[in-house]
Amino acid sequence: MSGNLNIAIAGIGTVGGGVVKILSEAASLLEKRCGRKVVLKAVSSRDCGKARDFKVGSDVKWYDDALALADDKDIDVIVELIGGADGIALELCEKSLNAGKHFITANKALVAKHGKRLAEIAEQKKVAFAFEAAVAGGIPVIKVLKEGLVGNDFSRIAGIMNGTCNYILTEMKETGRSFADVLKEAQDLGYAEADPSFDVDGIDTAHKLSILTSIAFGVPVNFEAIYIEGIRELSLLDISDAHELGYKIKLLGIAVKRDGVIKQSVYPCLVPVDYPLAKVDGVNNAIFIEGSYVGKIVLEGPGAGRGATASAVLSDIIDVASNRFTYPFGVPVGSLEKCNYTGVEKHKGEYYLRITALDEAGILAGISDILRDEEISVESLLQKPVKKGDNANIVVITHSCTENSVKKAVTRIAKIKGVVNAPKVLRIESV
Amino acid sequence: MSGNLNIAIAGIGTVGGGVVKILSEAASLLEKRCGRKVVLKAVSSRDCGKARDFKVGSDVKWYDDALALADDKDIDVIVELIGGADGIALELCEKSLNAGKHFITANKALVAKHGKRLAEIAEQKKVAFAFEAAVAGGIPVIKVLKEGLVGNDFSRIAGIMNGTCNYILTEMKETGRSFADVLKEAQDLGYAEADPSFDVDGIDTAHKLSILTSIAFGVPVNFEAIYIEGIRELSLLDISDAHELGYKIKLLGIAVKRDGVIKQSVYPCLVPVDYPLAKVDGVNNAIFIEGSYVGKIVLEGPGAGRGATASAVLSDIIDVASNRFTYPFGVPVGSLEKCNYTGVEKHKGEYYLRITALDEAGILAGISDILRDEEISVESLLQKPVKKGDNANIVVITHSCTENSVKKAVTRIAKIKGVVNAPKVLRIESV
Repeated sequence: MSGNLNIAIAGIGTVGGGVVKILSEAASLLEKRCGRKVVLKAVSSRDCGKARDFKVGSDVKWYDDALALADDKDIDVIVELIGGADGIALELCEKSLNAGKHFITANKALVAKHGKRLAEIAEQKKVAFAFEAAVAGGIPVIKVLKEGLVGNDFSRIAGIMNGTCNYILTEMKETGRSFADVLKEAQDLGYAEADPSFDVDGIDTAHKLSILTSIAFGVPVNFEAIYIEGIRELSLLDISDAHELGYKIKLLGIAVKRDGVIKQSVYPCLVPVDYPLAKVDGVNNAIFIEGSYVGKIVLEGPGAGRGATASAVLSDIIDVASNRFTYPFGVPVGSLEKCNYTGVEKHKGEYYLRITALDEAGILAGISDILRDEEISVESLLQKPVKKGDNANIVVITHSCTENSVKKAVTRIAKIKGVVNAPKVLRIESV
Repeated sequence: MSGNLNIAIAGIGTVGGGVVKILSEAASLLEKRCGRKVVLKAVSSRDCGKARDFKVGSDVKWYDDALALADDKDIDVIVELIGGADGIALELCEKSLNAGKHFITANKALVAKHGKRLAEIAEQKKVAFAFEAAVAGGIPVIKVLKEGLVGNDFSRIAGIMNGTCNYILTEMKETGRSFADVLKEAQDLGYAEADPSFDVDGIDTAHKLSILTSIAFGVPVNFEAIYIEGIRELSLLDISDAHELGYKIKLLGIAVKRDGVIKQSVYPCLVPVDYPLAKVDGVNNAIFIEGSYVGKIVLEGPGAGRGATASAVLSDIIDVASNRFTYPFGVPVGSLEKCNYTGVEKHKGEYYLRITALDEAGILAGISDILRDEEISVESLLQKPVKKGDNANIVVITHSCTENSVKKAVTRIAKIKGVVNAPKVLRIESV
C-alpha cells in the first residue's frame, strides 16, 4: 500500500461528525497504525450551510447530492451515514460499488434487506462492503466473528442489541415506573426516537440479528424468517415478579443453529440474574457467542452514540487502508449455504407464565390440572397474598417444555372461570 | 493468494492437539473463510511415539528436533507451543523468522521478554509474528485492540488474565475455604500447576499485561516496569469482609496511561460488585478496555484450555492465510514510543485497610487520629462484635488518597499499642 486513502462521508450528522473528529484528531496515530494517510476529501449533506458542532477542513469538498460522491474520481472510500433500507442509501451503495469504490456503512436496515446482493457486487469489483458499525455500535462483533473466532463453527448468538430497549427495561426495574413513563423520559433524554417503534417493537434488533446470523452461520441474510416480539406489552408486574424469582427481563435477539436448522427470534425474555446478559444494564449492548472450540464469549460495550459508532466505522476504514478487508459475510456470497429455518413454534425451553385471576378457591387447582395434562412440569410458583377484592397473580416457572404445549395450556387456562385475562407468556433464556 | 498454506506445529501437547483437531475438523469451513487450504505438514515433539488423544494425519512429517522445522522448505508457518521465554522456543522463533517463515505462538513469556526484537525481525522479513493466544486464551483481545478499536487512543486496560487465580478467589469466596485448600483442589483438578508460582504470584498476569500495554499504548514491551503482587497473602477474612462491604477481590493486571506516563501493575484488589470485572467468576478471563472514542468495552471468555487457545491460534493462522496480518505490536517497531513509567508508589485511589487488634478501648480512636493526620478520609468502616478474648478486625474503606499517605498511616497504625499485625492494605479499582 502506498499513497493516501481518500474518504468521503455521505450524511454528516452525529456519527458523521464523530468520524470527522477521529480522522482529524487521531490522524498521526492512524497513519502509524496503517502505514498511510487517511484523508477526508468530501462530505455530502442536504443542508451544507447548517451550523455544526465539529469542524470540517477547508480543503474538504461539500456536495448537496450524496450520489455525486460516487462520481468523484478522487474518492476511494464512501462512508454512508444517511440511513434507510432503500432510497438514496441503496442507490449510493450500488453506484459506489459499481464505480469500484469501497463502501462502509452503519446502515443495518440496508444490510439486512439488500446485503447479499450488495456483497455480490463488492466481491465482483474486489472492493470492501463493510458494516461493523451496523451491529452493536462500538463493539467489534463482526470482526470478532469473522476473524477473531474464525476457527469456530457457531451454534448460538444472543444479544442485547438495542440500547433504548435495554435502558427502558433497566429503568422500569430500578424505578418501578411503567413502560410509557420511561419511554417518555428516554425520548426527552434523546435515547429514544419520537417514533420509537423501530426500537421498542424489536425491528432494529431483528435487523442486527439477521446480519450476525448470516456471518455466524454462513447463510444469506434472512430478515423475513425472524420471529419478532417487542417490549410494549411488558408490565411492571412481569419485571418485578421475574426479579423476585431470580431473573431479569431483557429484549434479546437470538439465533440458534441445530442439526442444520436455524431459528432466529427477537423477544423479551427472562434471563437468570447470574447469567452474563442479565448483568448488562442501561444503554449498553452485549453479544453472547457460542463457538465449537472457543466455548462462550461475551462482548459488552456501548451500542450507540457518536464516539462508539464512529470507532466502528474507523475499524472498517483502517481495514481498507491496510488492504485487509474480508468477504462482507465471512465467506464468498456464492458459498453462503441455503438453509432450513424454523419458527418460534418449535421452541423448546423453560417458560414464565403469569395468570391473573379472581381471588377464589379452585383456580390454582384448575391451572395445575391443565399443566399436568399438557405435560408441563412446574419448577417454581409464586402467588402473593392480595388485598380482599384484588385480583390474584399466579406466576409459574416451568421446566423445559414445548412452545406448543404452552400454547395449548394457556388457551385452556384462559377459559378457567375466574381467570381474568389471557395469561402472559415469556420464554426463559440462559445466556 | 493462492496455493495451500503449509503449517508446522512445534510441541503438540494439549493446545497443539486442539490446533490439529480444528485444522482437520474445520478444514472446509476454513477454506471457505480464507479462500485457500490450510494444511498441516509437520509437527515436532520430544516424544514422537507417545500415545495421544488426537490423530495426526499419516502424511504429516514428525520431527524430534523442533529447530529442524525452520529448515523445512515446505513450511510457510511455524506454530510454537513449546513454551518458555528462552531456550528452544526463542531459538526456533529467531530461526523461523530469519528463514522468512511466519511465526505464531501462544508463548507470553517469550513475547514479554523478547517481543520487540522478534517483531523487528518479522517486520524486516515481511512475515507475521502473531500471538493472539498468548493473552486471555480464546478472547481475541489483541485483534480487538489492534484492529477492532484501531481508531482509539487508549487510556486504561484492566483484566482478569489468569484463570487459575480467578478460580481460587471465586472458590474461596463461595466455599469459605482457605487459599492453601483451594489451591490444592485446583492442582488436583488440573487447573493449577504443581509449581503454581507463575500463576499465583502474578507473573503470568504480568507477562500478558506487558503485551497488552505495548499494543494499547504503542510502547515497547516493558515487563520489568510492572509492579507485581500475587494472591498468596489473601486471607478468607479479606474476601468475606470485602464481600460484606460490596466488593469482590480479583487479581487484576492494570495498565493506565495519563499525561504520557504509564503505570503497569498486577495486584489483588477490591472491585465493587456491580462493576464488570467483579462479575467474572471461575476460570474465565475478562478484559476491560477504555478508549478515547468507543468508551468502555469488556470482553469475557475462557482464558485457557485446549479449544479456546487453539481457537486463538487459528485466528492468527487464518490472518496469515488471508494475508491480513498486521504489525506485531500494532505499529512498526520503529514507531513504538519511548515512554515514562511510574510505579505503584504514585498510585492514587480508594483503599481497603484491615487492622487486627486486641479488643480494647482506644484503638479505634488511635486509628482515626492517624488517618486524619495523613489526610485519609473514611468512606466506610466495619467492626464486627467479637467473642470475648478474640482479636477485633477493623476494616476501613477510604475515599481516594495517595499510596504514600496510606503507607505512612499503616506504618503508624502498626505501632499502636494493641494492634496485632501490620495492617492489610488492598487497593480498590472501579473496572
